[in-house]
Amino acid sequence: MSDLLRIGVMASGGGTDLQSIIDACQAGKVPATVAVVISNRADAYALERARRHDVPAVHIPVGKTGSPEWAQADAEQVRVLRDHGVGLVCLAGYMRINGPALLAAFPRAVMNIHPALLPAFPGVNVQAMAVEHGVKIAGTTVHFADPEFDTGPIIIQAAVPVRDDDTADELAARILAQEHRIYPQAIKWHAEGRLQVDGRIVRLTGPGAELAPDTPGVLISPPLEAGF
Amino acid sequence: MSDLLRIGVMASGGGTDLQSIIDACQAGKVPATVAVVISNRADAYALERARRHDVPAVHIPVGKTGSPEWAQADAEQVRVLRDHGVGLVCLAGYMRINGPALLAAFPRAVMNIHPALLPAFPGVNVQAMAVEHGVKIAGTTVHFADPEFDTGPIIIQAAVPVRDDDTADELAARILAQEHRIYPQAIKWHAEGRLQVDGRIVRLTGPGAELAPDTPGVLISPPLEAGF
Repeated sequence: MSDLLRIGVMASGGGTDLQSIIDACQAGKVPATVAVVISNRADAYALERARRHDVPAVHIPVGKTGSPEWAQADAEQVRVLRDHGVGLVCLAGYMRINGPALLAAFPRAVMNIHPALLPAFPGVNVQAMAVEHGVKIAGTTVHFADPEFDTGPIIIQAAVPVRDDDTADELAARILAQEHRIYPQAIKWHAEGRLQVDGRIVRLTGPGAELAPDTPGVLISPPLEAGF
Repeated sequence: MSDLLRIGVMASGGGTDLQSIIDACQAGKVPATVAVVISNRADAYALERARRHDVPAVHIPVGKTGSPEWAQADAEQVRVLRDHGVGLVCLAGYMRINGPALLAAFPRAVMNIHPALLPAFPGVNVQAMAVEHGVKIAGTTVHFADPEFDTGPIIIQAAVPVRDDDTADELAARILAQEHRIYPQAIKWHAEGRLQVDGRIVRLTGPGAELAPDTPGVLISPPLEAGF
């Protein structure tokens, strides 16, 4: 086993965020490797993506939140992640509430990505909520997970415009393009030990790298390094 | 009386947003004029700014929300605004809840500016709340007022980065610089009859003007016209 950070990705759906992480690792932009992918759904395309990259793909059914089956899945997830030597868990469109065992086993080492500028629009179907609310700026957030949904300390955010007459799908696509940039960046900073968590505040420490030029119509904070 | 839109500004504090509106009108960027300034506080510097520009400055004390004095102030505000031929009311750091008479007298013609990316952080002291929450992107919102606080249809938003170790004052100054751009822009669009309100959605209609170049590290949506 190399000294690369080993990532466990948990996903319920198509896994485009997973793909962006795999691609960034394989391109050498992030000093990490995806060691295992876990899904609560046997038919999640994320599992197929994993298999195509020879990454172990594990289906762990999850019962109703709080049920014995849910607690059992929580323990099973930890067992699988540890078996694969995982040092960082990345939730990537994982639509179930994590149990206490996972968070206890990986303190400040479970990240989540959410398609809104938290604390605005926590929950699900948030791109449609943003369109219906009439916001003019939406975005996405990478944060450390905590026992609540979408509330943990924020690592990086990207803001994008909402255009008049945007559909939820159009806005979701614009947000997703930035998710695929900021999630690998956040993982790189974590792999380099540069994220210092102080209560709710996440500080980026250490020497800065060359920065990416601004993307017109997008605001990312902290700024992305070149290549993301 | 010219055919310029006549604006009534209501402010409780220093009135820097008021100043940005006066300046934009005097520079000819906005086809409007500030016809009267109203404050609930006799010592508000906004009243002094008004007097320095020969704009009528009116102190209207406001009692406890819901009290007979509050209802009386509501009626008095409408009387003063109408006496000055006001067609648009701009709340600019006005820290009291408006009464029903004001909103009824100026339907879809009361604007407010709020120093956060609504619907995140409604209320007061929101720049400090953003810093304490650890968000990486904050901003400001111009919206039409409705009977609730900070909930009406959104016209324009500006997003700015929150830097590690920002104080609330540092963040507030960064936000304020954008307030002074987007509030005059929103007023111009209103004066030109280009804001179409459809439920919660505000659409910008009509031919677009030349756009301002992007400001590094700031995202504004809809984009500003040249000169703002």
